[in-house]
Amino acid sequence: MFSVGARGVRRVVRSMVAATTTSTPRTATGVSAAAEVIKMDVSQPQSLKKALSVPNKLLMGPGPVNIPLRVHNAMMKPMLGHLHPEFTEIMDEVKEGLRYIFQTKANVVCCVSGTGHAGMEATMCNLIEPNDVILIAQNGIWGERAADMAHRHDGDVRVIEKPAGDVFSLHDLDSALSQHKPAILFMVQGESSTGALQPLEGVGSLCRKHGTLLAVDTVASLGGVPFYMDAWEIDVVYTGSQKVISAPPSMAPMAFNDRAMAKVHARKTPIRSFYTDITWLANYWGCDGLPRKYHHTGPVSSVYALREALSMMCEEGLESLWSRHRSCAQKLYDGLADLGLQLFVDDPAKRTPTVTTICVPNGVDWTKVTKYFMSKYRVEISGGLGPSAGKVWRVGLMGYNCTPENVDKVLSIMKEALANVSKLKSNL
Amino acid sequence: MFSVGARGVRRVVRSMVAATTTSTPRTATGVSAAAEVIKMDVSQPQSLKKALSVPNKLLMGPGPVNIPLRVHNAMMKPMLGHLHPEFTEIMDEVKEGLRYIFQTKANVVCCVSGTGHAGMEATMCNLIEPNDVILIAQNGIWGERAADMAHRHDGDVRVIEKPAGDVFSLHDLDSALSQHKPAILFMVQGESSTGALQPLEGVGSLCRKHGTLLAVDTVASLGGVPFYMDAWEIDVVYTGSQKVISAPPSMAPMAFNDRAMAKVHARKTPIRSFYTDITWLANYWGCDGLPRKYHHTGPVSSVYALREALSMMCEEGLESLWSRHRSCAQKLYDGLADLGLQLFVDDPAKRTPTVTTICVPNGVDWTKVTKYFMSKYRVEISGGLGPSAGKVWRVGLMGYNCTPENVDKVLSIMKEALANVSKLKSNL
Repeated sequence: MFSVGARGVRRVVRSMVAATTTSTPRTATGVSAAAEVIKMDVSQPQSLKKALSVPNKLLMGPGPVNIPLRVHNAMMKPMLGHLHPEFTEIMDEVKEGLRYIFQTKANVVCCVSGTGHAGMEATMCNLIEPNDVILIAQNGIWGERAADMAHRHDGDVRVIEKPAGDVFSLHDLDSALSQHKPAILFMVQGESSTGALQPLEGVGSLCRKHGTLLAVDTVASLGGVPFYMDAWEIDVVYTGSQKVISAPPSMAPMAFNDRAMAKVHARKTPIRSFYTDITWLANYWGCDGLPRKYHHTGPVSSVYALREALSMMCEEGLESLWSRHRSCAQKLYDGLADLGLQLFVDDPAKRTPTVTTICVPNGVDWTKVTKYFMSKYRVEISGGLGPSAGKVWRVGLMGYNCTPENVDKVLSIMKEALANVSKLKSNL
Repeated sequence: MFSVGARGVRRVVRSMVAATTTSTPRTATGVSAAAEVIKMDVSQPQSLKKALSVPNKLLMGPGPVNIPLRVHNAMMKPMLGHLHPEFTEIMDEVKEGLRYIFQTKANVVCCVSGTGHAGMEATMCNLIEPNDVILIAQNGIWGERAADMAHRHDGDVRVIEKPAGDVFSLHDLDSALSQHKPAILFMVQGESSTGALQPLEGVGSLCRKHGTLLAVDTVASLGGVPFYMDAWEIDVVYTGSQKVISAPPSMAPMAFNDRAMAKVHARKTPIRSFYTDITWLANYWGCDGLPRKYHHTGPVSSVYALREALSMMCEEGLESLWSRHRSCAQKLYDGLADLGLQLFVDDPAKRTPTVTTICVPNGVDWTKVTKYFMSKYRVEISGGLGPSAGKVWRVGLMGYNCTPENVDKVLSIMKEALANVSKLKSNL
């Protein structure tokens, strides 16, 4: 029996170490039912005694977005074991839905059981071996984060930069690939910190010419703009469940094609992370043709939600989704122009319809406007992030929230807010 | 404009690279609303056209467990932004609930946004620097997994072993600590692959004597058996949301005390993972006294669910929870003895009430019994895992599912199944 004193515990928990009490009817077979009551050092918090209360907001920032009732309802479905056949069938359906939205026939299509950042980390940790050259095309916060992660994985990190709001041309990329000869090129399709949309057509071909793998972050763009993993010769892609997909944040869908998997299989050093090890994930998601092994406990309810969100996307169809995002964004641009507001990304071709960055006019305190939206209407629009902090508002038009009605609402509140903020200002 | 051909795309997506169409009313300001329709290479899967259907099962395996309606309902609450004040208040409430169930006043109490394995990985990746000696007390699959992860993080991994079903004594640990002088000792409180319960009282004092940090996995035990992080001088602990807590799998609650954080802050090498970097997580969870920065998008609905599950645990109280688990386990032991079944863990003091391992009698095909449970009653009990594979059934009594009624149900089906399986056998 343990005799070392445990400071702070007033009395020893005898039930932990021996079932010696005599008050239970059948002590021979089991655990004591009469363990001593122990005084707790930490008591129940008052805050958990009140009911959970969550306000209803319209989330028109860069994500997460509001969730359709059908997706919410999916999470009410009964729990299943993470390897039950009914659950692995749902995982298979998710996989098929992801193949559709990624436009890929790749074998390895799965999810990391975490939010978008976990997808970025899985990309870095599976692809990079120490001293691999990785080229990061950085034009906002996501490139910065990717560079941070790549450093942590001992990559030889090279960064090419464009000013916030700008994107890389094929010429820029060809030069950089020639110069750095990277094993991996990392790009962001929808740079939600700046509102920029990186064209990707042709980049895959360039990468193949240079023997480079192409990894693309589509967290803020996928489903809202065209994306063709196979046709564009993209080797690794990931996204997040809480943007256009319109499920709760919790899953990072991703795909590795055969070129990417060949690099993984040829590694000389272990993949640092077991949790995001793509070979284990591929097995758990039934992508490797082998019987599923227990890797981790999949987030069952989140997978249900993702399945329903993908089902809704499939019903609508990608062409319709892209067109809806384009037309709502156009409506927003038009309305903002009518209000005399400028967009942060000048060139219309370089804007992602999913996140619109609006220049804060001189003399306006941007925080007063976002507070007006929230306090009077419970509508979220966001300030800038990283290179755009303090310079812009960000309005998201993604998935379930991307509707003409929501555009009208944002425009009408913006008009009122600007008038109100100016009034406030003139009162000062 | 991009001119490199993209194989497989029948027509170029002009809307991606320039808004030059003339059919939209206001081409000057924005994105074309009349992009060409493109033929998809991958069409919508048939499987997502059918309604999501999930059978109702009683999950009496080692987790996940069924979820109370109140916890399900929490996930129906509206989405919030991951840094909205109403959401960070809910995170604070979760933190207080975790302090209660961990019995700690540590500052750094938070969740990794992933399932239990992510907690194990966060432990390894934050604590281990290359060549740090880590001692793993291995008596089942969790020790094996921990050793795997520790290797990936370049730890100098030393393993002490006990046979499946056995646990480590203070004497065992004192000897091993003297011999290996590890920076970290890793232990598992409830070894769900074997049903063993590791006593922890006194281990912390030993570790302090040897200058070792003590990290404990409580995924399969926390809430079902006494645990006192502070009083037992445990430096790092993590658990999973889908066991006794009875929320969906998705969150790995964890706590790092000041000793553990001192090691983290003294690191000379970067923490490999950004996603599970405890310094970032501590900030996002409001544990470091600094304003919250954007680390990652927290899984909002999962946090709601965890909050409600913790609230229910606080209402019941830990003493009552522990006692309920003890008495239900005792009832199960008694009933199994009446059926003539032996437990895999002989010594009652070494059994975790949360997962009971039952020896498969000679001549019985264990799979026939689990299939009988599932096909006739939609009740899950599991086979063994790792060292217990093929040798045992595992019955979970955790949280919401830990009731006398469920024990009765398992016992009555077991009786029927054994009779039936024997009948089947005698028919052969």
